[in-house]
Amino acid sequence: MYRLYYSPDSANLVVRLALELLRAPYEAVLVDRGRREQHSPAYRRLNPQGLIPVLVDGDAVLFETGAILLYLADRHPGLAPPPAAAARGDCLKWLFFLSNTLHADLRIAFYRERYADEPDARERVGRTAQRRALGHFRLLERQLAAREGVWLLPWGRSVCDVYLAGCARWARLYPQGSPLAADALDDCPQLLALCAALEADPAVARACEAEGIPAPFFSRPRPAEPEVGSVL
Amino acid sequence: MYRLYYSPDSANLVVRLALELLRAPYEAVLVDRGRREQHSPAYRRLNPQGLIPVLVDGDAVLFETGAILLYLADRHPGLAPPPAAAARGDCLKWLFFLSNTLHADLRIAFYRERYADEPDARERVGRTAQRRALGHFRLLERQLAAREGVWLLPWGRSVCDVYLAGCARWARLYPQGSPLAADALDDCPQLLALCAALEADPAVARACEAEGIPAPFFSRPRPAEPEVGSVL
Repeated sequence: MYRLYYSPDSANLVVRLALELLRAPYEAVLVDRGRREQHSPAYRRLNPQGLIPVLVDGDAVLFETGAILLYLADRHPGLAPPPAAAARGDCLKWLFFLSNTLHADLRIAFYRERYADEPDARERVGRTAQRRALGHFRLLERQLAAREGVWLLPWGRSVCDVYLAGCARWARLYPQGSPLAADALDDCPQLLALCAALEADPAVARACEAEGIPAPFFSRPRPAEPEVGSVL
Repeated sequence: MYRLYYSPDSANLVVRLALELLRAPYEAVLVDRGRREQHSPAYRRLNPQGLIPVLVDGDAVLFETGAILLYLADRHPGLAPPPAAAARGDCLKWLFFLSNTLHADLRIAFYRERYADEPDARERVGRTAQRRALGHFRLLERQLAAREGVWLLPWGRSVCDVYLAGCARWARLYPQGSPLAADALDDCPQLLALCAALEADPAVARACEAEGIPAPFFSRPRPAEPEVGSVL
């Protein structure tokens, strides 16, 4: 039984999606960001950065969304090529790209106050990060358009698709007040088709509904309305 | 036989270190950044972002430093716990942390012009990224100090150590003109001990010398003086 520390519609969403898709047993533990519980000493013992999510598996305590996705995919078949497979490199390179390029730039946009110490500079770095993120989405769109099928890897549906769909959702909702426009990804039809294909899976619906996220979850995202733990 | 596309003292350095430590056969192909070869159509077919390194393994073309490190470590024993090992999660979480947090913030500091569209904002975002990177090094120092042994994982020497040593080097050399101070990591003795332990390995010396990097490679870094391919 895994334990997932979560906050509604945070990075944990893609971990929960993977858990549901893999039919892995887990319990979800709310970290109430409204009460800054992620900075409590108890939580910092799990993740010294005070970031969400954390996944606990027996004695193992994991953080970093990409790391948790790969860890789960290597323990339950279905969302990543096995380590010795020819397609493994393709999965790893896109998973790291999503983690350290797309998600990293979205993080700058969402938390721009962490990246500059002055209001005007913050706005500039936030807007630049959003332009960069749009460029990354379009690079991924070209990858999707260049291959058969709906998923990012020719191998099949993977943790990369789950992570990408989450980023496509967040980019058009956050930061509150100045996200990318609702139609910002309309020139990425393959990306929106990937989102829609994921949305059709009941396991995906279970994960999103558990975090108060209304359908359509990724293709036309609307704000989460969680019963508990909202920071809004 | 792997093929590593490199530019002296770029992110490829840590891939070359892994190749040498794993005794994996490879040939190195210079991508001359002085001639902007990384933006050539031929190179963009390998990595659509035009970033270095790329590793080619038969039909597989990989980019993303962290992805390549993990790919190699899963094909040659010695630098990562196997996928089914209990220590695997520990390795994955720190590898992703190094990739999307430490290296990501160093990247902002090195290439600040990509993260803001105005000179004053660029300087602010660059300095903030360097402060953030220092915080990450200190977090890693606390991890190192809390455990036995010299390496980041209790499991033993891993790709995480190699990646961390590279970051410790680059942070005090780049960007040219405004890197972190030479003594910026002197309050991280465990981190410097990790660097020194790696420096003592002949495989590490082979990798560094191939890129024109003088000893001590990581603990007291000095600029590379490559025979070819310098961008300086």
